[in-house]
Order: sequence, then C-alpha cells, then structure tokens
Amino acid sequence: MSDIVIGVIGFGTVGTGVAKILLNDRAMLEERAGCKIVLKRIADLDVSSDRGLALPEGMLIADADAVIGDAEINTVIEVIGGEGAAKKFIEAALKAGKNVITSNKEVIAKHGRAFTELAKAHGCTILYEAAVGGGIPVLHAIRNSLAANRIERVYGIVNGTTNFILSKMTATGADFSATLREAQDLGYAEADPKNDVEGYDATYKLAILSSLAFRCPVDYREIYREGITRITADDIAAAKYFGYTVKILAVGVNREDGLELRVHPVMVPDEHPLASVHDAFNAIFIRGSSLGDSMLYGRGAGELPTASAVVGDVMNLAFRGTQGFSHDTDFALAERKVLPISESITSFFVRCVVNDAPGVLASYANIFAKYRVSIHNIRQMDARDGEATITIITHPTREAEMRAALAEIEALPTVRRVASVIRAGLGD
Amino acid sequence: MSDIVIGVIGFGTVGTGVAKILLNDRAMLEERAGCKIVLKRIADLDVSSDRGLALPEGMLIADADAVIGDAEINTVIEVIGGEGAAKKFIEAALKAGKNVITSNKEVIAKHGRAFTELAKAHGCTILYEAAVGGGIPVLHAIRNSLAANRIERVYGIVNGTTNFILSKMTATGADFSATLREAQDLGYAEADPKNDVEGYDATYKLAILSSLAFRCPVDYREIYREGITRITADDIAAAKYFGYTVKILAVGVNREDGLELRVHPVMVPDEHPLASVHDAFNAIFIRGSSLGDSMLYGRGAGELPTASAVVGDVMNLAFRGTQGFSHDTDFALAERKVLPISESITSFFVRCVVNDAPGVLASYANIFAKYRVSIHNIRQMDARDGEATITIITHPTREAEMRAALAEIEALPTVRRVASVIRAGLGD
Repeated sequence: MSDIVIGVIGFGTVGTGVAKILLNDRAMLEERAGCKIVLKRIADLDVSSDRGLALPEGMLIADADAVIGDAEINTVIEVIGGEGAAKKFIEAALKAGKNVITSNKEVIAKHGRAFTELAKAHGCTILYEAAVGGGIPVLHAIRNSLAANRIERVYGIVNGTTNFILSKMTATGADFSATLREAQDLGYAEADPKNDVEGYDATYKLAILSSLAFRCPVDYREIYREGITRITADDIAAAKYFGYTVKILAVGVNREDGLELRVHPVMVPDEHPLASVHDAFNAIFIRGSSLGDSMLYGRGAGELPTASAVVGDVMNLAFRGTQGFSHDTDFALAERKVLPISESITSFFVRCVVNDAPGVLASYANIFAKYRVSIHNIRQMDARDGEATITIITHPTREAEMRAALAEIEALPTVRRVASVIRAGLGD
Repeated sequence: MSDIVIGVIGFGTVGTGVAKILLNDRAMLEERAGCKIVLKRIADLDVSSDRGLALPEGMLIADADAVIGDAEINTVIEVIGGEGAAKKFIEAALKAGKNVITSNKEVIAKHGRAFTELAKAHGCTILYEAAVGGGIPVLHAIRNSLAANRIERVYGIVNGTTNFILSKMTATGADFSATLREAQDLGYAEADPKNDVEGYDATYKLAILSSLAFRCPVDYREIYREGITRITADDIAAAKYFGYTVKILAVGVNREDGLELRVHPVMVPDEHPLASVHDAFNAIFIRGSSLGDSMLYGRGAGELPTASAVVGDVMNLAFRGTQGFSHDTDFALAERKVLPISESITSFFVRCVVNDAPGVLASYANIFAKYRVSIHNIRQMDARDGEATITIITHPTREAEMRAALAEIEALPTVRRVASVIRAGLGD
C-alpha cells in the first residue's frame, strides 16, 4: 500500500480516540505498517470544544465535504454515527474512490450491501470492524482466521449499556428504572435510552454479524427484538436462585431450514463464560464447523477501545492494500430465509403466580405435557395468603408450542398471572 | 494469489483433521478464497493405518522429501510435531521457496526467528497460527487487528492437558496423581506427561506469543517455569474457600525495565473470566494500550480445532498472497531484557501449618511486615492436635521480598511447614 492519508468526519468520542492514536502513536503505526499514516483533516460542526487533545493548526475544519473533496486524502473515517449525514458522506467518499472506515452500526446494517457494491464499482473498500463489539476484532476473525469453518451459530453480548444495567441489577437487587437512571447519571445510558434498552442497537449489530457469519444479506427489520425494560428484580433473584444470570443476547443460528435471528433477554447458566461478562464488556461466541465453540471478549464501546478497532482497520488497509479485501462475499451471497420467532427453539424460564390449592400443579403440568414441552426443573414455593409461585425451566422447545401452552395456562382459573417468561440457556 | 497446491507432512491427529477439511470442504474453501486449493500429497511413515478418511489413490506416500521436491506443490503443511525431522523439512521447504504452515510450537519457539529469515530470503512465508491456542486466532489478532495497540500484558490458559487436570481436581476433589491417570486413560494426557504437567509446552507457546506481542526475540529457556505436579487437593479446596480457582497460566508482562515471562499455577479470582475456562479449553487475555482488556477463548487442541487454524492460515495465504505477510517484525526487533523471577510482581497465597499457640500469628505477621509484604486476607483455622493452618493472601509484592519473608517464616520454631505457596490474582 502506498501512504495512507486520512480525513476523519466526526470529532465526538470515537473521533477523539482515533485522533489521539493517529497523532500520539504515529511513529509506532508507521513502523509497523511500513508506510506513512497521515491524519490530514478532521471535520466537525463543533470546531471549538476542548477534546483534551492539541491538534495542529488548521487540522480541524467544519466542512466535511472539503475532506471528501481533498484529492490527497485517500481514506475517510466516518465516526459521526446515525444514518442521514453519515450515509451521504460515506457514499460521496466511495464514489470519489476513497477507502472508508466507519464505526457506525446503524448505517452499515441499513446500507452495508449498497456500500460494498459502490466500493467495488469505484475500486476502493469499506471496513467497519468497530461497528460490532467495539474493540473486539470479531468481524476480521470471521472473514479471515475462521474462513475454514461453516459458522453454525453466533451469539453474545453486543450492547454495553444493557449489560451494564443488568450487571448492576444483579449486583444490587435494584429494579430496572432505578438502575437505568443510575446508568444515565454515569453516562452509560443516553437520555433517550430506547435504542439500547429496547434492543435496536443489538439488532443492527446482529444484522452485520450474521450477514458475515452466514454469508447472506440480512435485513435488521427481520430480527426478532425484545428489550430489557420488562426484566424485574424478582426475575433476577429467581434466576440467581436457579443458577442463572440474566443477560440480553443477540443470537444467530444457521439452521438447515433458515436463520434464527433474535435479540432478547436470556437466562445464562452461571457456569457459562457469558455469565462472567460484566458491566460494559461485550463477548461474542462463534460456533464453527471445525473450530467448535470460541469466544471473543473485550470492551464494546468507549473512546479508545472503539478507536483501537478503527485504527486496526487502517492498519489492515496498510498491510493488505485496497485490493486485499474481497467484498464479493459481504452481504451479497445467497438469500436465506429468516425464520419467524415462533419457529425458534430455546428453553424457557416461566414464573407463574397460582392459587395455593390441590391440583393446581397437576393442571399446569398437564398443559405442558399436551404441547410436548418437556420440563427440566420445576419448583413451587413462596406459598403465602393462598398464593404460590411455580417456577419452571423447560428443555429446548419450539416457541410456537410454548406460546400455545402459556395461553392455556394463563386461561386457567387457578392461575393468577404469568409473572415472567424469559428464554433460558444457549439452545443446546 | 495463484492457486494453492498443498503437501501435508504428518498424518497423525492434526494431519487427519487438515485432510478432512481440505477434502470435504474444498468447494466452500475455493469459493471463499477465489482460487483453487488443492491437496496433492500427504506424507507419513505410516501409510496403512485407517484414519477414518478415504484418500484418493496415490495421495498418501511415505517419502516427505518427495513432497518438498514436488515442483507443483507451493505450500507445505508440517504437522508431525517435535523438533528434529520437523526442522529439517521446514528448512528444506522454505529453501525451495515454498510457503510453510505449521502447528508445531516447539520448532517455532526454538527456530522461528531463523525460519522467518529463511522465508524472507527465499520469497516465501511461514505461518503458525495453530502453534498457540489451537483453533483460537490469537496470533493473527495480535499481528493485524490489534496492531494499533502497544501490548502491555498477555496471559492465559494455553495448555489443555493441565487445564483438564486442574478442572477435574476442582470438580472431584481428587488429588493430582489420580487425576493425571484419569486424563491419561481418556487420552487427554500422554504416557509421558512431563511436557504438559511440568509446563514445557506452555513455555514454547508463551515464547511465541510474547515475541509477537512485545515485538522482540524471546528465548523460551529464559521463561520461568513451574508445573502443576505439586498442586494438592488441599490447595484446591483452600482456593475454593477463598473464592479462587487454581489454573496454570502463561504470563507475559511488558514492563519499562524488561519483560516478566513466567509459567506457573495461579489462584484466579472466581469472578474473573479465566476461572470459567474449563477442561481442554484455552483462553488468552491481551491488554492493549487502547483496547484495554480483551480475551480470546476456544479449543486449544484436538483434530478439527487445530486443523481449523492450519486451514485458516491457508485461507489467509489465499487472501493476501505470500507478499501480504511482513516478517520484518517477527522475532527480529529490538532485544528486550527478560527479568528474573525474583523481580516479578504478583500476589501470593500461602498456607502454613503452625503450632496452635499464643503469639504465633504475631511473629508470622511481623516477618511479612518487615519485608513490606502487605496482607490482603488472612485466616487461621483448623486448629486440631495443637496444630493450626494460617492462610494468607498478599497484595502484589516483589517475589524477592516474598521469598525472603518465607525463608524466615520457615525457620520459625512455631512453624511446622509451609504447605503451599501459589501466586494469586492477575497482577493488578
């Protein structure tokens, strides 16, 4: 590769991290890359705030189009996030034949396929390692080192905000809304937390992960999505009692008859490595046909971890050159059917509040038997004021049967309410 | 890259896995690589044993030199293991300008630097992802995706046999020798287990890992080595009591004044992800200047997991071509000093059997105070027959001070014996 001359669009958290590494570690990067790696311009509408970093005179400008129009710049780093402006800048950069590196999961989940076609047409490339798992090099691993595997399953913790909230709820016993406020105060959750706590962010990341892992285009809107807003302190306490930890996972399963793609809370067995992934850390499991289970773990967000992945893409570009990345296999291979959630197969954890009376457990168990839902663990407890809690954990079962059983159970006169239904285990 | 024509030397466990993937998944590999990937020959002295795989007529031959002498073969996969013959074949293949891929940690730890110089001189390359962590793509991650980081620390579980034995001892409460025999019966440990249980295998892997991570040549003979043969069921029970799990780790620390390089048992806090790495799994932590902590986890051995990494190297060769790998930074950068073990800094877990008498604890504690060893946790228990056990866990301390304190403690008339001294924590 000839020298890399970089323009960064966006000077927020990630952009600041990228600038710090490119400026402070330039000698190290150039020695490793064997070429010059020059940060020429940073564009941001805010050219006055202090980011704790001294930039050379004239480096920071307000006009992103001037970055794209600069003939000397051959690599554009887009780190503004969101869809609108980012899409416009990425398209313009690719059309100008510039390589693009981005940390923007939303724009890649929505337009990744079109971008890779544009890149191919203009002899450049687009890389987006930082869009999934922050600093964790999971996309590079799937494309390269694991290329000798058919990937059967990819699942994990891909959103630091929700993992932070669930970790805190587990540690303190507090409920969701109090913990969300704490996360907001600490800067781990945004003022409008919907994108994280309702699982949208995770669907973007799962769309990207599964399109590379399963080698097909994935529309994030086809991913089943369930956030953490309904998880209660009681759920977490019950999980603990049975030896589970509540996490929200993004899950992709490569089945013969189609793909399971879903984002939802899962009761993870305490002895599973994902149960030990706390706070803002991310971890992604990949099951390969030859490798078996593997996991990559690290910081899923933050200024320098995310910048580590962005500059890692710069380094890979230096090592391999624009031609070293084939996008023929990104997003663009055979279409695969996405299975409806009713077809997915998982275990379930169900807590029901029932009348404390003879025969209740039997009528309850009979309904599960009727729908062939096999029980792994059952416990009736907390009898008080004529009311008892029955908690069951099932063996893996098709969601459709489970839902039918639950509908009948909810209609039983002896069942006061189905307090919670949470998927359990890792599906095997 | 033009087509890859492969000769495999060695048709044992790994060779069989490599042949299975190359033959059974050829269409998938070629579609991904965009070139032909042909397995032409396998050489092994044993040409008659059934490996559960039907080879085309004439593919299996006894003469490895005929593989190296075959002008059509441009890539030699060495999977015989050990030093002698492997070294000869690798050198001959590189001198013939053929790319070499190997899973052989011993030969790379001992001769990797010479091989990379040979490869450079002959316009070919040598790749050895499978030599460390089996199927886990840790070396590729260090060289590529993490290239924007100065690596500060690399440590983990790199030997499946010893992790299997320690996991079993933890689960069953059995002692080392009984568990070793069980591991031997199950095929997890060799008849002569020394290479694994005394930590030699781990020193080879740490030499390779740390030479890439810290970008300097590392002589495996300079690595401090302590195996698991002295770990008792009592140690494991005491660890459990204090919330630790005993693991044997390979540890590399990049200090200003030199490198700490050591292989020894460590009491890992139960909440640390390494404590959840069981049986034959491996896991490697990498702490990068920007990324912070990250971990890669997966199967560290076995036919198909190891073959996954070997064929992953074939795929990377296909993606990048021989020229896509710079070995200028392998083994060959600035020399670094390896610090003696007396300079290393860790916490310690010490169990002492003492007389159950007034003043014993005080004299014991006074010695630690004298050497400025700070105590994190202390407990005296099991008083019986005039004898008590004092268990302490220290804060991180220089090993030299710790050893001096222990020598004085051992000489105390009230101390019957120092039952165990195990390093604890991950040093921070």
